[in-house]
Amino acid sequence: MSSIKMFEKPLGMRDTFPQIYEKLEAVRETGRTLLRTKGYDFIKTPTVEYYDTVGKASAIHDATLFKLVDSQGNTLVLRPDMTTPIARIVTSKLLKEKIPQRLAYFENVFRAQQQEGGRPAEFEQMGIELIGDHSVYADAEVIITAIELLQAYDIRSFKVTIGHAGVLSCILKDYTESEKQAAVLNELLVKRNYVGFEEAVLTFDLPKTKSDALLAFIEEAVSLSSIEAIEKYVRKNDALDYMQKLWKLLAEAGLEKYIAFDFTLSSHMSYYTGMLFEVFAAGSGFPLGNGGRYDGLLEHFGAVVGATGFGLRVDRLLEAMPQQHIKNTTALVLFEPGAFGRALQQASLLRGQNKRVTMQSTVGLVDAEAFKEQFQEVVYCYKQEEEQ
Amino acid sequence: MSSIKMFEKPLGMRDTFPQIYEKLEAVRETGRTLLRTKGYDFIKTPTVEYYDTVGKASAIHDATLFKLVDSQGNTLVLRPDMTTPIARIVTSKLLKEKIPQRLAYFENVFRAQQQEGGRPAEFEQMGIELIGDHSVYADAEVIITAIELLQAYDIRSFKVTIGHAGVLSCILKDYTESEKQAAVLNELLVKRNYVGFEEAVLTFDLPKTKSDALLAFIEEAVSLSSIEAIEKYVRKNDALDYMQKLWKLLAEAGLEKYIAFDFTLSSHMSYYTGMLFEVFAAGSGFPLGNGGRYDGLLEHFGAVVGATGFGLRVDRLLEAMPQQHIKNTTALVLFEPGAFGRALQQASLLRGQNKRVTMQSTVGLVDAEAFKEQFQEVVYCYKQEEEQ
Repeated sequence: MSSIKMFEKPLGMRDTFPQIYEKLEAVRETGRTLLRTKGYDFIKTPTVEYYDTVGKASAIHDATLFKLVDSQGNTLVLRPDMTTPIARIVTSKLLKEKIPQRLAYFENVFRAQQQEGGRPAEFEQMGIELIGDHSVYADAEVIITAIELLQAYDIRSFKVTIGHAGVLSCILKDYTESEKQAAVLNELLVKRNYVGFEEAVLTFDLPKTKSDALLAFIEEAVSLSSIEAIEKYVRKNDALDYMQKLWKLLAEAGLEKYIAFDFTLSSHMSYYTGMLFEVFAAGSGFPLGNGGRYDGLLEHFGAVVGATGFGLRVDRLLEAMPQQHIKNTTALVLFEPGAFGRALQQASLLRGQNKRVTMQSTVGLVDAEAFKEQFQEVVYCYKQEEEQ
Repeated sequence: MSSIKMFEKPLGMRDTFPQIYEKLEAVRETGRTLLRTKGYDFIKTPTVEYYDTVGKASAIHDATLFKLVDSQGNTLVLRPDMTTPIARIVTSKLLKEKIPQRLAYFENVFRAQQQEGGRPAEFEQMGIELIGDHSVYADAEVIITAIELLQAYDIRSFKVTIGHAGVLSCILKDYTESEKQAAVLNELLVKRNYVGFEEAVLTFDLPKTKSDALLAFIEEAVSLSSIEAIEKYVRKNDALDYMQKLWKLLAEAGLEKYIAFDFTLSSHMSYYTGMLFEVFAAGSGFPLGNGGRYDGLLEHFGAVVGATGFGLRVDRLLEAMPQQHIKNTTALVLFEPGAFGRALQQASLLRGQNKRVTMQSTVGLVDAEAFKEQFQEVVYCYKQEEEQ
């Protein structure tokens, strides 16, 4: 093994050093406290799952799954998301208990990377799943909770953009001439290819009223500040009605200013059946996270109950938060051989004053001056005559 | 996919449900607080490492490694322990900063299992590594810290049994007639095969003084309550001298009652060069954890500095702790459609009293009576005439 390779990590894998660790831990603590206060119970699932169970059902592209094979020849995956394992648990066990279930997590998820210097292959997600409630109140709760988290993290400038699979499919159906055309446009939206969308509309040879409507839709419907703005593009239907109710609830919670609507939002996973949303911080091109209603996933696991939730990336939350400065206020008790007992007493005394205290023998140090520099306070314990 | 398989997890993989999650979180919180107070900095390493880097160097048997192959054809492993990744980080980066380094972790490690119903394939370890200090004070600090953790967890009855690779090899050398005999006996001790040890001694056809000494050693040296007791088996040497110093420091810390010596302790990994120890709670056959000096591992990574530390199993700590009862004191605000705004106010009021509050609409409930049972307190918000 070359000495370079000796210190390498696999593509996209990262070490977390103490300063960042403490900041991440502060993020977890704030999140856990808020979510517990709102009645969410924390849960943990294994890092490794069966490919057939969780890998296939997950919203994550197959090519980015970390796969391995167990001694029985089964294909395993490192969990690519938390929603699918939680759907597995809930449908196999928890639905027998009281529903709705309110579950929360802080866990690492995995995405295999193909090249150096790219995205992380392992990153931490926090999120909630509200399972067994089909009502609009559950969706409102999930969005309100996401907003309350961002507020708890002091992220001042952010938007939650909300769409609805039903509203989008109604628009695509009404303004195209075939299911195939609607499917092509939907696929382009999944990829966020707005230019491709416009080009496709022009090649479809649609009546001018329809193509104009679609071009205006793609121009405007990516960011509407109120629900009324979409009404000119879509006839009255249940999905629109649902979104109007949702908007009213969010307004009752006083959160209008954080909300925008993006009716071009679409997911490549067919189990996103209703409302879906993304969370953006100002100045960041990547979403902090996303969520939505995924009743279809639980149906895949054989349970016909509603389910809604979100996941946020902990690393991106940390980037979007105001800089925290965690002060190192550790004291050093530096002792000579023979003064160990007194050093123990001294350290205990200082810890009693709520100080962090490192004990260190002088004989264990190579460069005492350099070592001492990292401490605010150094207390010396010298060997005394009566000690050996 | 069969409906049974649909809910299965890979061999040895477990879900962690909310009640246990909160208990584990309490264990982490106590541990983090104590270790920070003692000047340890927390660190995190990736779940996935190169086999060549971390897999081969780890103390874990190759057959229990979870292996996978990346897109470049490199073999990867799920980290089997934390000591080896930390040795990688320290030697590649942190040794350029101030040493000694005091590092701590709470992380999952992985051991592939071959059969159903066996040991966990993923479990959490907490531990510390004190790197860059070759002195006996570092070993004393590590053992004292392990004991303080057990005390912080209210584990009343426990023992730390300490051995030393140098003392053992001196005894095996002195009382056998060849290096091969010594190696055979050492291998039997690594496997804790005391019966096999006695049988091997008898087949070696040693002078009676030697075989008697070895048989007495294996009988007595597994649990000596003071260091003096080993002196009759071993001539004066540096390792014994070291252990006498260590014993004196532990006595100065007032911890004699928790200490026993087991000079039969041996590890299959050659990098355990000095003191090594195990931690047992009363009434448990499995150790809560183990530790020792592993200067040899850092040499493998090219750094000639001392290193000592320990790892404890978080699941076993939890089993050994007195039962904690975490009370669920969540209140329920149950609201009718139309009373959402007032429900929000009510929930906010109760949270202001430091209560955990679940909000739930009546229309989202299938069985309201069953759902309400889990709460200590239920506040109703009915629709009022003036509301829609």
